[in-house]
Amino acid sequence: MAVLLPRPLPRKATIGIIAPASPQRDPERLRRGIRYLEQLGHTVVLAPHVHDRFGGYLAGTDVDRAADVMAMMTDPRIDAVFCSRGGYGSARLLDRLDYRALARRRMLLVGFSDITALQMALWRKIGLVTFSGALPSVDMADRIDPHTEEWFWRALCSPRPLGPIRQPWPTTTVQRGTAEGRLIGGNLSVFVTLLGTPYQPPSKDRILVLEDVGEETYRVDRMLQHLRQAGVLGAVNGLITGQWSQSGRPAGSTPHRPVEDVLAEIAPAVNGPVISELMYGHEPQKLTLPFGVQVRLSSRGAGLRFLEPAVR
Amino acid sequence: MAVLLPRPLPRKATIGIIAPASPQRDPERLRRGIRYLEQLGHTVVLAPHVHDRFGGYLAGTDVDRAADVMAMMTDPRIDAVFCSRGGYGSARLLDRLDYRALARRRMLLVGFSDITALQMALWRKIGLVTFSGALPSVDMADRIDPHTEEWFWRALCSPRPLGPIRQPWPTTTVQRGTAEGRLIGGNLSVFVTLLGTPYQPPSKDRILVLEDVGEETYRVDRMLQHLRQAGVLGAVNGLITGQWSQSGRPAGSTPHRPVEDVLAEIAPAVNGPVISELMYGHEPQKLTLPFGVQVRLSSRGAGLRFLEPAVR
Repeated sequence: MAVLLPRPLPRKATIGIIAPASPQRDPERLRRGIRYLEQLGHTVVLAPHVHDRFGGYLAGTDVDRAADVMAMMTDPRIDAVFCSRGGYGSARLLDRLDYRALARRRMLLVGFSDITALQMALWRKIGLVTFSGALPSVDMADRIDPHTEEWFWRALCSPRPLGPIRQPWPTTTVQRGTAEGRLIGGNLSVFVTLLGTPYQPPSKDRILVLEDVGEETYRVDRMLQHLRQAGVLGAVNGLITGQWSQSGRPAGSTPHRPVEDVLAEIAPAVNGPVISELMYGHEPQKLTLPFGVQVRLSSRGAGLRFLEPAVR
Repeated sequence: MAVLLPRPLPRKATIGIIAPASPQRDPERLRRGIRYLEQLGHTVVLAPHVHDRFGGYLAGTDVDRAADVMAMMTDPRIDAVFCSRGGYGSARLLDRLDYRALARRRMLLVGFSDITALQMALWRKIGLVTFSGALPSVDMADRIDPHTEEWFWRALCSPRPLGPIRQPWPTTTVQRGTAEGRLIGGNLSVFVTLLGTPYQPPSKDRILVLEDVGEETYRVDRMLQHLRQAGVLGAVNGLITGQWSQSGRPAGSTPHRPVEDVLAEIAPAVNGPVISELMYGHEPQKLTLPFGVQVRLSSRGAGLRFLEPAVR
């Protein structure tokens, strides 16, 4: 499969904002995120249905949200499309997209969390590299962490390989080894909903990255078992995990079991290195990761290194 | 595929109790369930690891729980095996079972909720009919609902077809039609973890039954979308849903959306009848359903009718 790299973000870019999943609970957060982008010299264009609401947790109907995705991601005047936030709903759109048209434009897309479904579908269907990380309504609404900010803009702009990750704490080795492969994954809860569907990305020769938020330990266990039994963990070359924010809670009155225990237990299912504590997840400090780029995962050195450019 | 029917439960049976998933939070509940069975004249045998605990939410290690499943479900002195309760963990055992040996004995198994994974694996691998419904530590620990009780024992004993369901309220038509097929399904959260694995039961010409407990509406939506995109909803002949106990809650501060709305929205993905309000789920009043038996689902009459015997 050919890999489609988006064009690097220009210094003064026109950024389109879409909401393929849930709406803003507090619209002021999106306004603050837009202000941040404008203060950097960018021009921001909102998709028509960004402020819509439907069925409680959706930013408009499926038809309207899919129309926004298609319009913004094929618009020649737009340099990049940022998803305002995650929530739930991007998987509902996957049957409604014109992947050929999306391939022709190879838009630079930034999403995270629920947007994992859209990102993996774009990777599976057309090999488009997309970015998982900081979002306007989430990270840019408050004072963005400087380290997060620096990496974010470098990831979107630099035509050179990003090289080794830089984060304030070391990664942790769960299982030793070194392996290379293209990076796939995202939010665990969302990624598992692609298993057995036409949007599941092939696992062979890949490096899988996973994070999650607010999941009880038994649920993380159940999802990792699903990945194992669906053959994903046995096929990838390595696994790296980010933050498990507010996860790892006990279910009801069961005693606490840390997510780390579950991860250590499942690690032998992976034929390669298993690394944890990547600065990636539902926390203000996060590395924005280009999905689809060739990486090296290792229990030595920085842990994760990007070997190829993410834009061209 | 040949369908394996278990032998009918004798009047004075020897019942083995296993815990393939989570342990008893309150062991007194299991004792009360055992007392109920003994008062009916049955002999109860506990698997060696029923009271084990491991990792907080598991009733012992995978090795020990799988050994209990194999020992009890192949023991010629045992007439039926009841799972004490659900929780989480039966999916972890699926790679560790000797399905050939299980086919030779064709044990009468009663499980529910998390046991869906074990039941669908037994159906997928060896065509064994198993029963989803009342459990010793759950329904038999308190005064069992008389209607639930009557149906339960009839389901396990009667060599005649169970015929139309009997429940105190009518089923509700979400989408009209009449269709026949073998009954598969169980707990939605557990059933979806089989998608894309070797334990996923084929969907063609089946009737799917689903229930769940404690899931926010967006999660039910996400799981139904997963079933749709994995081709399950488009392949089955009909869908019937049970109770959504404590489900349908809003996520965070999103407005409430009833599960019924999500069900109505997804119904057109099913090429056949969609019926709701079956007396089946995480409530004291529940019909015990034999998975794998040929049924007729219809928007007319009782809604669901069992056309073939569940035991022979």
